[in-house]
Amino acid sequence: MLSTMQDEQLSLATLLRYAQSFHGDATISTWTGEGVRTITYREMGAEAARLANALRALGIGEGDRVATFMWNNTEHMVVYAAVPAMGAVLHALNIRLFPEQLVYVANHAEDQVVIVDGSLLPMFAKYLPQLRTVRHVLVANGDPAELTAPAGVQVHSYSELLAAQPDTYDYPVLDEYAPSGMCYTSGTTGDPKGVVYSHRSNWLHAMQVISPNSMGFSDQDTVLAIVPLFHANAWGMPYAAMMTGASLLMPDRFLQPSPLLEMMAQVRPTFAAAVPTIWGGVLAALEAHPQDISHLRTCAVGGSALPPSMMRAFQDKYGVKLLHAWGMTETSPLGSIAHPPKGAVGDEEWAYRATQGRFPASVQARIVGDDGSVLPDDGKSVGELEVRGPWIAGSYYSPDGAEVDASKFDDGWLRTGDVGHISPNGYLTLVDRSKDVIKSGGEWISSVDLENAMMGHPAVAEASVIGVPDEKWDERPLVAIVLKEGFTAEAAELQGYLVDKFAKWQLPEHWTFIDEIPKTSVGKFDKKRLRARYADGDLKVVTL
Amino acid sequence: MLSTMQDEQLSLATLLRYAQSFHGDATISTWTGEGVRTITYREMGAEAARLANALRALGIGEGDRVATFMWNNTEHMVVYAAVPAMGAVLHALNIRLFPEQLVYVANHAEDQVVIVDGSLLPMFAKYLPQLRTVRHVLVANGDPAELTAPAGVQVHSYSELLAAQPDTYDYPVLDEYAPSGMCYTSGTTGDPKGVVYSHRSNWLHAMQVISPNSMGFSDQDTVLAIVPLFHANAWGMPYAAMMTGASLLMPDRFLQPSPLLEMMAQVRPTFAAAVPTIWGGVLAALEAHPQDISHLRTCAVGGSALPPSMMRAFQDKYGVKLLHAWGMTETSPLGSIAHPPKGAVGDEEWAYRATQGRFPASVQARIVGDDGSVLPDDGKSVGELEVRGPWIAGSYYSPDGAEVDASKFDDGWLRTGDVGHISPNGYLTLVDRSKDVIKSGGEWISSVDLENAMMGHPAVAEASVIGVPDEKWDERPLVAIVLKEGFTAEAAELQGYLVDKFAKWQLPEHWTFIDEIPKTSVGKFDKKRLRARYADGDLKVVTL
Repeated sequence: MLSTMQDEQLSLATLLRYAQSFHGDATISTWTGEGVRTITYREMGAEAARLANALRALGIGEGDRVATFMWNNTEHMVVYAAVPAMGAVLHALNIRLFPEQLVYVANHAEDQVVIVDGSLLPMFAKYLPQLRTVRHVLVANGDPAELTAPAGVQVHSYSELLAAQPDTYDYPVLDEYAPSGMCYTSGTTGDPKGVVYSHRSNWLHAMQVISPNSMGFSDQDTVLAIVPLFHANAWGMPYAAMMTGASLLMPDRFLQPSPLLEMMAQVRPTFAAAVPTIWGGVLAALEAHPQDISHLRTCAVGGSALPPSMMRAFQDKYGVKLLHAWGMTETSPLGSIAHPPKGAVGDEEWAYRATQGRFPASVQARIVGDDGSVLPDDGKSVGELEVRGPWIAGSYYSPDGAEVDASKFDDGWLRTGDVGHISPNGYLTLVDRSKDVIKSGGEWISSVDLENAMMGHPAVAEASVIGVPDEKWDERPLVAIVLKEGFTAEAAELQGYLVDKFAKWQLPEHWTFIDEIPKTSVGKFDKKRLRARYADGDLKVVTL
Repeated sequence: MLSTMQDEQLSLATLLRYAQSFHGDATISTWTGEGVRTITYREMGAEAARLANALRALGIGEGDRVATFMWNNTEHMVVYAAVPAMGAVLHALNIRLFPEQLVYVANHAEDQVVIVDGSLLPMFAKYLPQLRTVRHVLVANGDPAELTAPAGVQVHSYSELLAAQPDTYDYPVLDEYAPSGMCYTSGTTGDPKGVVYSHRSNWLHAMQVISPNSMGFSDQDTVLAIVPLFHANAWGMPYAAMMTGASLLMPDRFLQPSPLLEMMAQVRPTFAAAVPTIWGGVLAALEAHPQDISHLRTCAVGGSALPPSMMRAFQDKYGVKLLHAWGMTETSPLGSIAHPPKGAVGDEEWAYRATQGRFPASVQARIVGDDGSVLPDDGKSVGELEVRGPWIAGSYYSPDGAEVDASKFDDGWLRTGDVGHISPNGYLTLVDRSKDVIKSGGEWISSVDLENAMMGHPAVAEASVIGVPDEKWDERPLVAIVLKEGFTAEAAELQGYLVDKFAKWQLPEHWTFIDEIPKTSVGKFDKKRLRARYADGDLKVVTL
């Protein structure tokens, strides 16, 4: 017996047509430094058609890569809408990649066109001569004359190129497995690796993002997308917003706490998403200049864990619920999200809020031990997290079809490199990245637990913990501390702060005080560089 | 370039495993007449495995049809979980079908097994001898000895059969297009027609049901599923509840207002779904015996339109939001749902609430004129509604592969037989079924509009409008009125009530007063029978 249902393919062109018609009045607002410039989804649809026509006129066809080098703004959303709909592949370049990585990924992806924000031209100009496959550069929000084109590359004004084009486009009907976009991991080891999303994976992921056990978007929302569009699809917010008619507020290059709070005051978004660093800055700015931010019903936090103290401060002082989410480039990125379960209140609620969250039905998850055996979801058994599902990567992109880093895949499951445990009711708690966990005398010490606890100390601005070689125990923790301005603290005092929070053998004896923790291009602690500084004898270590 | 995402197939077995593990504490409660009997999703999972093992032992394999003849209760949910997961096809028989239709659909579907509630055995016993393909009957909640088995049919006790089975089952990995369930239309013309759902269509539909612009399920919800599990998949609630860990409250055979209100008082559900008749009864009971029902955040209403007066009464007096939804067996069934758009308040909000609602991104919709041309979504142009999408039927089931009623499909779109218009922002307003619309002097008169207006009159319990032949105008409306007990009203007075609500040429001049409007098996007005009574001269008509 066969199903009688239609074989309708999930398609981002359908999503674009839906957003521009039935949610034509929803808006995209971009912060200008003083106020917002705004277009409707109806106008986004017309602009996307003009862009698709322009790109086709430049020779872009199905499967060709169109890159962006842009902030979160209106034009970037138009590219998100237009490029996959026309069958091309959107490659949002991470403007914060280290130069050699940026050049590597653009060449590896064979980007044909790059759309660049005017404010980023000085940075982009340094890369352009090394980009081997780029034929056209479109300059948005800026003057193309500021860019010197190498031989074989044409530089266009985005607005002038589009002005001449019709505002409708006959988007092709595609197989739902056709590629729609790509992102590269910002991995701290080896070359960045490419993940190629499909229309199907983007569509299903957007359906998950809008559900109440995830971000719960509806047309009542205005979504402040602080996390960059080049960072794991901005956690899926663009397509989720289009799917529900949620309006968008884009910060452009104004990512400091003060303009973020100014745009919040003016537009009053109902939802926001950003990494912990941003929320830390916003909280500090709020402490200095209190402001009502209760228009935010929920904020998603991902990339790394938010110190519980900060989550509490947002809730208790400002009535804003910050929700941990877990994901990665390879998972589109959701992942799990830390809505507490029904009935959890008080300390129990906060314990759930501190986890990386619960998995949705579409993401299967399991914990695998060192010996490859699947461990029980008992909230205790620690091992590597593996996931599978329709928006999870099954391989890395390879231009020539050769397998890339096959060790990251385990019989249909993605090995995440994250170490933790899963509770019987599906909540993930990460204790570390597999390469960061500290192996001391046959037991594991979580660097993340130590960091979180340490960051609750009033004098500590940042804390990062790495394992350093130890003759007796194999490895022991070293804590790198950045003190808050105007504060002092001794190692012994800081260690004392941990005494009632950890077993005695877990207490770190090695301490170092530094001005700044080195960070990766996406703002995570770069422990590889911290380890290198230690190995080079570049850190002044106090041993208790 | 190829996508690198996993080709993970959407599967109801995955959903079952998810519900029973990560939402293992969520519950299914069934009303017993006095209180509830309750199992957890964890127990549902074990019971489903026992059922799958039992069915396999009876020879049921992939693609075989397992039917139910049951109320909404715990055992029915277990069947919903187990049968598709094991690769068999769930056919929930509509216990209210007319006998010849019931026999027709069970034979047409070639049901191998029927699981029957004890309380329905007397009715089922009459059908069983005519069911040609049934080999096994499982009696749940009752005594199998009460059923005399025809030759070749074995009758089992559901509970005894399952007791002997293991509580785990190794569910097969299926293609997502594999059939999962089937429903037959209760069409008032011709034989019922079968729709075969797939794992893919059920999964995607459940993702839509849980989204905030639809029913918005989460694990915080307890869902009172009044609409039968045999009626268009109970509007998708079973799988949506499993997908989010929402708990379920099942009314079993207690569908009268008084027990419904009693179970609400005891369990305090947050969501409920039923046809207008049920809500009308509940409202009348509430007026007699007021009760706090504000634990209901939202109720979905479908099947036909709810009189706006009733929707207002629920909201103003009881603080409960009733939401129109539109769908049909062929659409899984969602459809559209009437959440008002952002910013709509007061009269504007109520105008939106009175529509059939807005379409989600996954359901494409268009209005097609008499000449086959696509009409604009201008909120005025009236024609037949056509829809397409991944959970919309593309054909009707045919055991021998022959095309069934191909006229219902138009180049990849389903012709719904509903007549209406779509607003620029995607709200559907139905004016009639295409066969019920009254064509008077080249203009269309909506029978539904007249019915809705008439049912706002204090003396009117029910009103149904049909077109009757007219020499001059082709057709003119005849209004059949059922008066409320203890009320009287003359035709002229009732017509007067419509004067300021309709154009003069739309005012009906033919009236008849009857004791009851004939209804279909799912409780809709059966206008075919009303027309037959008129044609037979069986109605006493007053013409003004």
